[in-house]
Amino acid sequence: MTISSASQHIEAVRWQDGSCLLLDQTALPHVEKYVRCETFDQIVACIRTLSVRGAPAIGVAGAYGVVLAAKQALALPESERAAFLDAAVGDLAQARPTAVNLRWATDRMRRAWSQQEITLATVERLLDESLRIHAEDARANARLASLGAAVLPPGEILTYCNTGSLATGGQGTALGVVQEAHRLGKVSHVYACETRPLLQGLRLTAWELKRMGIPYTVLCDNMAATILRSRPISAVVVGADRIARNGDTANKIGTYGLAILARHHRVPFFVAAPSSTFDGTAATGDDIPIEERAPEEILAILGVGEFAPNVCNPSFDVTPHELISGIVFETGVVTPPFVEGLSHLREGNC
Amino acid sequence: MTISSASQHIEAVRWQDGSCLLLDQTALPHVEKYVRCETFDQIVACIRTLSVRGAPAIGVAGAYGVVLAAKQALALPESERAAFLDAAVGDLAQARPTAVNLRWATDRMRRAWSQQEITLATVERLLDESLRIHAEDARANARLASLGAAVLPPGEILTYCNTGSLATGGQGTALGVVQEAHRLGKVSHVYACETRPLLQGLRLTAWELKRMGIPYTVLCDNMAATILRSRPISAVVVGADRIARNGDTANKIGTYGLAILARHHRVPFFVAAPSSTFDGTAATGDDIPIEERAPEEILAILGVGEFAPNVCNPSFDVTPHELISGIVFETGVVTPPFVEGLSHLREGNC
Repeated sequence: MTISSASQHIEAVRWQDGSCLLLDQTALPHVEKYVRCETFDQIVACIRTLSVRGAPAIGVAGAYGVVLAAKQALALPESERAAFLDAAVGDLAQARPTAVNLRWATDRMRRAWSQQEITLATVERLLDESLRIHAEDARANARLASLGAAVLPPGEILTYCNTGSLATGGQGTALGVVQEAHRLGKVSHVYACETRPLLQGLRLTAWELKRMGIPYTVLCDNMAATILRSRPISAVVVGADRIARNGDTANKIGTYGLAILARHHRVPFFVAAPSSTFDGTAATGDDIPIEERAPEEILAILGVGEFAPNVCNPSFDVTPHELISGIVFETGVVTPPFVEGLSHLREGNC
Repeated sequence: MTISSASQHIEAVRWQDGSCLLLDQTALPHVEKYVRCETFDQIVACIRTLSVRGAPAIGVAGAYGVVLAAKQALALPESERAAFLDAAVGDLAQARPTAVNLRWATDRMRRAWSQQEITLATVERLLDESLRIHAEDARANARLASLGAAVLPPGEILTYCNTGSLATGGQGTALGVVQEAHRLGKVSHVYACETRPLLQGLRLTAWELKRMGIPYTVLCDNMAATILRSRPISAVVVGADRIARNGDTANKIGTYGLAILARHHRVPFFVAAPSSTFDGTAATGDDIPIEERAPEEILAILGVGEFAPNVCNPSFDVTPHELISGIVFETGVVTPPFVEGLSHLREGNC
């Protein structure tokens, strides 16, 4: 299956013919293929193995997973349906711990279900809600791209991990901002960190930038300081997996270090995310759980062999709000002091 | 061939039976094998392909390369010998551009030759000089390990790339300091950055630490900020490829960023190197050439496939002296102001 050309951008997640299609991001950039998920546990597995990744994208996938679970429930005796769906929503919500969008989306689906009897009408209502979540994410992407591009200083951009179409239900967060700024003639070149261990920058962001025709260079993560010192980098722009009430931001491991390097070189550091990434229940970054993943992700690079070094593999870190110049939401660009600037989001996401 | 157990440490470079043996560091940690070099151009090739790497180790290998070239010259008509040796020394000196130890060692060998007629006696004199360079490096290692361990605050250490026996003619520079500090009970755990693209930390430093029985954890380079924030790191200790008169220090790419992260977390940042790493002809880091290596080193991690992203691959960066707490030489620990502290080295290495 090839990637749809009907869409203006790559579709990481698609609802089609009663199934959820996920572009298998573990196979990119070499192979472009969709995985068809017909059950919620296939969605859980794809989220865990990173066939679908990126905070907003796993939120959308999680929502479709609830629809699939409701469809599965229909095949059960009526008395068992609610318990099945309830457990499935729990499994989906917990498939990965750090990105809050997954919990946000499954909570929203749970509210749409509202514990009513599960019938075909329930499934249809849940499908409507999941399609709404997807469409809202795409609209939020477009809006924040425009708002972010407006505030971005002209020059070259340094970005991290993958925050494009592959990471969201639309055109992307940070990479969407960069794309729009490039369209406006404000961005001449993009430097993308490779992002160890799973190389979302080298594999995915490079692939997206090439498709978009934006001049780019990938660097190993340890080259970022040199690039910040030697190139006219006007801003570092990254995505987010969870944003606390004080602006502390969890994102892919390495983001925190990059923010320190940006500050040292007096380069503005922007976060771009839909408001579904805001977690009103987290006062600070200390309230954000950090996923530790398997050592194999790091060791795979060594190839076969008996010698397996001890490694640690935290997948995320928290960038303290003091290092962030601005957070670009679809509702506006929030600048310090963040506690005040983010207060309007508390209502919806607590 | 297995690694000698007669030596107290791993021997990266060994002169044996008229040849130079190099432990093939591209095969580690999976395979431990020596490459036997019988001609100078084999040494040049091993330096270029990183079978031998580490600034002091390539200095020692370069010196032995001059001996091999002199032996080769003996087989030529007398009238051609000097030109052959002269060209060979030039090739050896230029095998890699950043580490000054290679030029330092080949310059010293050239002085030992002093353009005299090339006879068996010349070869013997050159062999004596190369063995002296090797032995001096081992002694410098031992001395700087002791001096460095004395100034290191107790706690956990973060280190970078590989600076152990594999990188030198003795027990190592930064890793030698760490080993000695561990022996004294001052170091409880070592965090080693994997060091992309060629993973000298994941492949070599982990292997050395395991052999030494020192508790360690390898991290991806982008996890360093998290480790500095979350662990009781008492110092960052790194090696050096070239040190300018003002203390600016060229070392493996990523060192500069690590120094910024250390400063941000108020962790002392130490450089450990033999005085052969000092370049009295370089006023500042701007005078140090930075090697750019092939993109394949970065792209190999992607595996086969048609999609080859644009990448940059600078192999070194320069850490400005302002970010360095102290430089540990065998002659003493130099602290700021470096211009004064390093002045005693200028005589020898200009």
